[in-house]
Amino acid sequence: MQIVLATHNAHKVTELGAILGAAVEGLELLGYDGPEPVEDGTSYLENALIKARAAYAHTGVTSMADDSGIAVEILGGSPGIFSARWAGGRDNVANRQLLLSQLGDVAQEHRAAAFVCTIALVGPDGETSFTGIWPGRVATEEHGEHGFGYDPIFIPEGFEVTAAELEPEVKNSMSHRALALEQLVSYLNAIAE
Amino acid sequence: MQIVLATHNAHKVTELGAILGAAVEGLELLGYDGPEPVEDGTSYLENALIKARAAYAHTGVTSMADDSGIAVEILGGSPGIFSARWAGGRDNVANRQLLLSQLGDVAQEHRAAAFVCTIALVGPDGETSFTGIWPGRVATEEHGEHGFGYDPIFIPEGFEVTAAELEPEVKNSMSHRALALEQLVSYLNAIAE
Repeated sequence: MQIVLATHNAHKVTELGAILGAAVEGLELLGYDGPEPVEDGTSYLENALIKARAAYAHTGVTSMADDSGIAVEILGGSPGIFSARWAGGRDNVANRQLLLSQLGDVAQEHRAAAFVCTIALVGPDGETSFTGIWPGRVATEEHGEHGFGYDPIFIPEGFEVTAAELEPEVKNSMSHRALALEQLVSYLNAIAE
Repeated sequence: MQIVLATHNAHKVTELGAILGAAVEGLELLGYDGPEPVEDGTSYLENALIKARAAYAHTGVTSMADDSGIAVEILGGSPGIFSARWAGGRDNVANRQLLLSQLGDVAQEHRAAAFVCTIALVGPDGETSFTGIWPGRVATEEHGEHGFGYDPIFIPEGFEVTAAELEPEVKNSMSHRALALEQLVSYLNAIAE
């Protein structure tokens, strides 16, 4: 079975292709260099579907795409779908610094947050989606060198260190993305039977 | 009847004192120069209560305070209680520019927002509160010279101009603050009978 990953990022295709290829027999992940749609959805799911639908429409091959972000409870779920450009541009450092400034000295018990990842799969058999949620809280300052995005200011539930301080293998076994991928793998193995 | 307005801003006391004095017979609004508490509440009401309680504890006179902000639907109600320092500092221009950047080219039908104002009243007879909501949407650019805060990027429902383009008398007859004050006035007149 072939699946197009709706991203122009070849590194992501290689990385995810290795993971999915090991988990689903005969699965081949393909890159995508077709038109990139405007992500103007109002939810993670809508944005993931917009990308997957565009790739499926262009290639005719079952396509997947994801959308993810950090949802902060006291901000009503924001930054959410705006996580990647929270400070106005696509600058992870600025995004993190802004979120820390906004929360200021909000007490630990009110800093609950979660990383969210939704994967959409669009093909001849229809559309489906899988969502992984990684609960935790927003730290009060940056820590750690691993990871990217909001990892250095996100303390996962059950830990006292940030996601950027976890070994990649640890993070990759429990992250929002890992949980969404687990569901995708179960689904793909089920429909392959 | 005397009420302390829990703010160090003498201009606010004069302005609101004139409005309330005209609406409630015998009402005298007093200023406050006592300690200012940390506003660490998680809602408009909590923050207003924190300020009113502190003034009442210090003066022994019935005290009022308000908290207000802009709630954007697609941001889950944010900036909300963080409106005044959304960009990290107390800079209205930076706050507005950040909110416009965050929403980017989000379509008009998804830009719903509301100005919210909660007034808390704390005194020997207990605590009560009044909330005014002014619905509208976030504009795509700044317009207008009147008003302050988010006024230049807020288009009230029923208008095609921003709150900063409205004549002050028009704004002051329908704003979130006006609606909350109306309720306070009704309450004060009712308990005075």
